[in-house]
Amino acid sequence: MARIGFIGLGNMGGPMAINLIKAGHDVVAFDLVEAALERVRAAGGRSAASAREAVLDANFVVSMLPAGRHVESLYLQQENNACLLDEIAPETVIIDCSTIAAETARKVAAAARERTRRMLDAPVSGGVGGAEAGTLTFMIGGDAEVVEAARPVFEAMGRNVFHAGDAGAGQVAKMCNNMLLAVLMTGTAEAIALGVANGLDPSVLSDIMKQSSGGNWALNVYNPYPGVMDGVPASRDYSGGFQVDLMIKDLTLAMEGAAASGQSTPMGALARSLYVLHKNGGALGHDDAGGLDFSSIQKLFSS
Amino acid sequence: MARIGFIGLGNMGGPMAINLIKAGHDVVAFDLVEAALERVRAAGGRSAASAREAVLDANFVVSMLPAGRHVESLYLQQENNACLLDEIAPETVIIDCSTIAAETARKVAAAARERTRRMLDAPVSGGVGGAEAGTLTFMIGGDAEVVEAARPVFEAMGRNVFHAGDAGAGQVAKMCNNMLLAVLMTGTAEAIALGVANGLDPSVLSDIMKQSSGGNWALNVYNPYPGVMDGVPASRDYSGGFQVDLMIKDLTLAMEGAAASGQSTPMGALARSLYVLHKNGGALGHDDAGGLDFSSIQKLFSS
Amino acid sequence: MARIGFIGLGNMGGPMAINLIKAGHDVVAFDLVEAALERVRAAGGRSAASAREAVLDANFVVSMLPAGRHVESLYLQQENNACLLDEIAPETVIIDCSTIAAETARKVAAAARERTRRMLDAPVSGGVGGAEAGTLTFMIGGDAEVVEAARPVFEAMGRNVFHAGDAGAGQVAKMCNNMLLAVLMTGTAEAIALGVANGLDPSVLSDIMKQSSGGNWALNVYNPYPGVMDGVPASRDYSGGFQVDLMIKDLTLAMEGAAASGQSTPMGALARSLYVLHKNGGALGHDDAGGLDFSSIQKLFSS
Amino acid sequence: MARIGFIGLGNMGGPMAINLIKAGHDVVAFDLVEAALERVRAAGGRSAASAREAVLDANFVVSMLPAGRHVESLYLQQENNACLLDEIAPETVIIDCSTIAAETARKVAAAARERTRRMLDAPVSGGVGGAEAGTLTFMIGGDAEVVEAARPVFEAMGRNVFHAGDAGAGQVAKMCNNMLLAVLMTGTAEAIALGVANGLDPSVLSDIMKQSSGGNWALNVYNPYPGVMDGVPASRDYSGGFQVDLMIKDLTLAMEGAAASGQSTPMGALARSLYVLHKNGGALGHDDAGGLDFSSIQKLFSS
Repeated sequence: MARIGFIGLGNMGGPMAINLIKAGHDVVAFDLVEAALERVRAAGGRSAASAREAVLDANFVVSMLPAGRHVESLYLQQENNACLLDEIAPETVIIDCSTIAAETARKVAAAARERTRRMLDAPVSGGVGGAEAGTLTFMIGGDAEVVEAARPVFEAMGRNVFHAGDAGAGQVAKMCNNMLLAVLMTGTAEAIALGVANGLDPSVLSDIMKQSSGGNWALNVYNPYPGVMDGVPASRDYSGGFQVDLMIKDLTLAMEGAAASGQSTPMGALARSLYVLHKNGGALGHDDAGGLDFSSIQKLFSS
Repeated sequence: MARIGFIGLGNMGGPMAINLIKAGHDVVAFDLVEAALERVRAAGGRSAASAREAVLDANFVVSMLPAGRHVESLYLQQENNACLLDEIAPETVIIDCSTIAAETARKVAAAARERTRRMLDAPVSGGVGGAEAGTLTFMIGGDAEVVEAARPVFEAMGRNVFHAGDAGAGQVAKMCNNMLLAVLMTGTAEAIALGVANGLDPSVLSDIMKQSSGGNWALNVYNPYPGVMDGVPASRDYSGGFQVDLMIKDLTLAMEGAAASGQSTPMGALARSLYVLHKNGGALGHDDAGGLDFSSIQKLFSS
Repeated sequence: MARIGFIGLGNMGGPMAINLIKAGHDVVAFDLVEAALERVRAAGGRSAASAREAVLDANFVVSMLPAGRHVESLYLQQENNACLLDEIAPETVIIDCSTIAAETARKVAAAARERTRRMLDAPVSGGVGGAEAGTLTFMIGGDAEVVEAARPVFEAMGRNVFHAGDAGAGQVAKMCNNMLLAVLMTGTAEAIALGVANGLDPSVLSDIMKQSSGGNWALNVYNPYPGVMDGVPASRDYSGGFQVDLMIKDLTLAMEGAAASGQSTPMGALARSLYVLHKNGGALGHDDAGGLDFSSIQKLFSS
Repeated sequence: MARIGFIGLGNMGGPMAINLIKAGHDVVAFDLVEAALERVRAAGGRSAASAREAVLDANFVVSMLPAGRHVESLYLQQENNACLLDEIAPETVIIDCSTIAAETARKVAAAARERTRRMLDAPVSGGVGGAEAGTLTFMIGGDAEVVEAARPVFEAMGRNVFHAGDAGAGQVAKMCNNMLLAVLMTGTAEAIALGVANGLDPSVLSDIMKQSSGGNWALNVYNPYPGVMDGVPASRDYSGGFQVDLMIKDLTLAMEGAAASGQSTPMGALARSLYVLHKNGGALGHDDAGGLDFSSIQKLFSS
């Protein structure tokens, strides 16, 4: 049982912290929203009045924040001539689960290394559902032995723990995976719409492609066409799941990563353009499709 | 054991006919290339001097031709006031395995129906390797009971037999599947190249994405990055496999299908543009990349 | 003053025929729609009961039909062992103004040549407005001296007469031009929308780009942003002008031409995908945007 | 005659400073490269040992730097508790000609405004040739009266002076214009290649499209096809002109601007992907096509 400082109790961070509590850890959490702290206390955890208080004496620090600027600010911003990294004990393992640019992750990790702090970038996939069920996937950058040291913490929150490489590699892996996810979801939506427009039943076509060379994650567990699969967002009007706005955020990170490394990613770039068109177009009576699940890209082709 | 007339003994048709012979069927084959006929005879089959002779008294007719115009010409062209369909006995099951436009398949099937002939469109996937190993996938359009009647014939040549719907549906299913395949292969190549350019090991990244939401057929069995997977074209300089030229042919059929049905397929259209760029660019010392395996699209992003 | 047989009196052909009459020519017109013939008679022309009657004794034959199959059927279909080309006198100049595949134009021109008939493919640009005002642009394929012989006819209907090359070259030129037009209209719409979203006045931005390296036909005479320019479709709710459906038709011809010649046209292909998305999306209360002017692609980016 | 402080004497800034000297202004220049300062002195200007020295007593400050971080650093970095803006006299007009993100331009302009300094963002188009010839185009953001006050300075360096709007608007206008330029250059290259592959002469086709609805800046003065136009990069192996690397930089700024404002720019994004493919593909024996003129995108389609 470990003492864990947890910072950032949003849609993802909240249930992650509670799963750590359920696993028996002593969680001291901080967030700016009092209601989020209240939920942690109700689950048996403790709340702190500041990030500095939360990390005090922690064996592990876990952060889950919306964007790179929040992560930089949390760990690097000076206050009384010390940043948070200075306040964290050297033996503590710091795990940032936010999805941010690899460059930012590397900058913060380098600052940690200078102070002989051990840090991992560990963005997740699996969405709010995975956070609640404790079935998240972690893609991790940092030293192998630090990943091993943190394994019990990851396993309390998720099911798959992948070590992608050195500092920043977790962010790179997630950026690549989610760009590919956007491409295959859009391609799958397009292919099903083409089949339906040519007289095929979407379930029959999905079943054939799933078992053929078109097979992919979307066809297996997340079919975008309404009525083909039970329990997926497509069958409940694209509510829940992984929002279009978050996919656009991840695609923007991928485009920045491609620009920074001089790579051409035409399919990823087009997927991004189509997701923004979809968001702005406002599908089926929504003013803005950004809040729908990302499989709603189907609407662009099946209107 | 059935009497089978087989027309078209190319790279695909040749081994398919031989697998029918191996399964104990009485195959009478026709092709314009004498060497192809010789191979059939050597395998224990018989050769015919014409398509008309090949279909005489056949329980099944199987054709495997390069393009729609050949299929139309084979079945519909009048000679002595009769087309080949008129020469085929009504109880015979006609199976066209060529990959052609659904529109053409429907036209020939309609001509067959007018003459009370039973016809299926049954394009395959699996390539030359699958044809030789007898592990092809058939995507079939036509009446369900005709599909059942022909099942032993399909099972002698392949492993998966999918009934996609009415006449033409087999072609539609293949067109959708292969468009999606092109999208996911290109997207996978792009994602791996992005990861490698940002410091990741291609095998580690492939492994992570395969088990995550980027998972797809290419990552599972046909990784496009050299050295990641044994026994795939990427690990033998992109030789063998499914040629770029054939992928371009299939994508062109998909674009025609999209145009005919008023569908927008931006990802499929971009994949097609990129495959033609790749072919014309002539990767790595080849003058024309059309003869390489289609996973060589990796070269476009990893040059 | 010439005797002209005119076949096809649609939105374009009707006013073109009337301009020939106004220029003093003796026009004998044929169409399947009686009201169209009536308009020609009211303008001082004559009507015929069949295409064969219209071309009898003509110095020039002009046809303006919707698609390649109509052109093939008009000129090549046998009736009493003769096709229309056989009925046209050898000294007659045949001008097909339809927008069709270059391949079809070449096929019909070859059939004409075999019969020593002189034929030009002469698709137009300029839309219904240009047809009515007699300001069309002709892009012409065929022999230079035949183009010269027909110049007075072209000049009665249009303002610009371009000789693009041999048979079929008129169609190729139009296909290339209209593909480029779709690309620059879409790109212009995108650029203005980007500027407006970043606080610029669309008129100021249009004016700057028009005089800079972004300058193009759309900015000069056909601005797609509502309110920037008087008298263009964008300033009357995208009514009138050149319909989205016709642009999609032209882009489909361009994609077929690219496929047939093994060319990659990624920008043209994407423009086509976006136009079909726009049509199917049904902008601003229209169920189908196909009937709007093609500059309405602006709506895709400024919704 | 004004006293002008000039900072940044690269390929663009060097000739711009010299044109100011030629117009009779008293130019005090600063750059880190001594050879650049020497050229200014040789032309009759003066050199300074620091930026602070250069701006001392200046009526105008002109800066021309490679990227946003240099501009931020130049104007905002504190040294002895003062940034350069603090050192510039309030009546001085500050003109930043660098091409940077609008966001950065607005940030620096806001810092200037806080100190009651008058600042303009004034990125240019016209390339090194335009800088040397004094024919640049300026796209300017800032107050109208400040633009007027600076007009003589602009006119000594360029030919067109456009006021685009408030602070940052110059950068937005340039980003939009150059994105559109990339789209129309790529589309033009594609269209010409398609025509040539279908038998047309590139000069004839270019001439037709230039006078038709495909007309654009590239066809008018910068034809990308070798041999069509004299004196352009395409006719000297794509040397000189505006480099692919710079176009990629501008397209990256446009993509960032689109992301920041939630806009979809599919054509611009594809153009960017194609330019990076082109750069990485290494056309015609160059290892990297980044140093070629941007009209060399023609090679992608005409290889």
